Amino acid sequence: MNGHFITFEGGEGAGKTTILHSLSQKLEKQGFDVIATREPGGIEISEQIRKVILDPQNTKMEERTEALLYAAARRQHLVEKVLPALEQGKIVLCDRFIDSSLAYQGYARGLGIDEVFAINQFAIKDCMPAITLFFDITPEKGLERIASNKDRERNRLDLENLVFHERVYEGYQKVIEKFPNRISTINADQSLENVELDAMARIDAYLKK
Amino acid sequence: MNGHFITFEGGEGAGKTTILHSLSQKLEKQGFDVIATREPGGIEISEQIRKVILDPQNTKMEERTEALLYAAARRQHLVEKVLPALEQGKIVLCDRFIDSSLAYQGYARGLGIDEVFAINQFAIKDCMPAITLFFDITPEKGLERIASNKDRERNRLDLENLVFHERVYEGYQKVIEKFPNRISTINADQSLENVELDAMARIDAYLKK
Repeated sequence: MNGHFITFEGGEGAGKTTILHSLSQKLEKQGFDVIATREPGGIEISEQIRKVILDPQNTKMEERTEALLYAAARRQHLVEKVLPALEQGKIVLCDRFIDSSLAYQGYARGLGIDEVFAINQFAIKDCMPAITLFFDITPEKGLERIASNKDRERNRLDLENLVFHERVYEGYQKVIEKFPNRISTINADQSLENVELDAMARIDAYLKK
Repeated sequence: MNGHFITFEGGEGAGKTTILHSLSQKLEKQGFDVIATREPGGIEISEQIRKVILDPQNTKMEERTEALLYAAARRQHLVEKVLPALEQGKIVLCDRFIDSSLAYQGYARGLGIDEVFAINQFAIKDCMPAITLFFDITPEKGLERIASNKDRERNRLDLENLVFHERVYEGYQKVIEKFPNRISTINADQSLENVELDAMARIDAYLKK
């Protein structure tokens, strides 16, 4: 694998999606071959799986079924899109990956971080991200940002209550304890420009190693 | 859990489906409350997942994606159909369950029995079958039986070659080594009547314990 697999993680309103796209452009200007992606990433099979997950008729969807479906969609996106790009030596910036499942489903939904990690290990095998940036902002501030941004499309998780988002935040802290070398915490409670500078510095340091 | 969860396993042409339905009727005549089922079992979410698995357009479906989807469909069928029946004290006879995934995908497809077991443990938690009947017939004879039965609907696995079915058979042997107390081997190379008698004797012995 010649490429570089970098994932962006964090709660809602941390600014990670915006920063991911602007860093993608900056890295391209530096001459790197970059793809910016997120699951299901336009992969037909993963889109079909996501449709099952999100179908509003599927009110009986059980939490473990959902976790397995996310892992299945992740696998297919990885195989069809991420791995081929890495093999071509590209930098892959991925908006959310395994750590989101660990924090949201493993911890916040209470399925257990280690249990959710086990099924995701099956899904990704040894293809863990090289580095992961965790965009750190308190749930209160993150949700405030979302509320003030009228252009943002609301998703199902945005509508969960503050207690849930606090659990997600706690979950991320547990995940960081589990993978202290891979995950870097970026202070996201600054201007977007400064958050971006910190994130870029982290990626630069990794690429220069 | 007051009920009894009994699964039927084996290669193609072992007669297990026919015997499952006739034993179901016999047990009902004995006064037991019985349901005969198989995944996806009419569970809407599991049917949707199965549609993704079987969609002939999905030629890029990767093996691990498929294994995760089977585990997801299994979870939902278990939660919506099997567990409620067991809670009501019923006998649940299920045509194929976790051991099929271990033999077909874990061993024959080469994903690893322990790895496929891990994702299925996530799917079923501690709800393993109380007993499992393995209908033992050589792949050659099983496939001969299928070929001579013109009413039988051919499925994708019937069309795999003999080498694959031999690997499935070997896989089941490994699975039996792993769970010697749970799985009973029934000689399926006899008349259906005798196979049925042996299977019924095994279930009777279990129910009388």
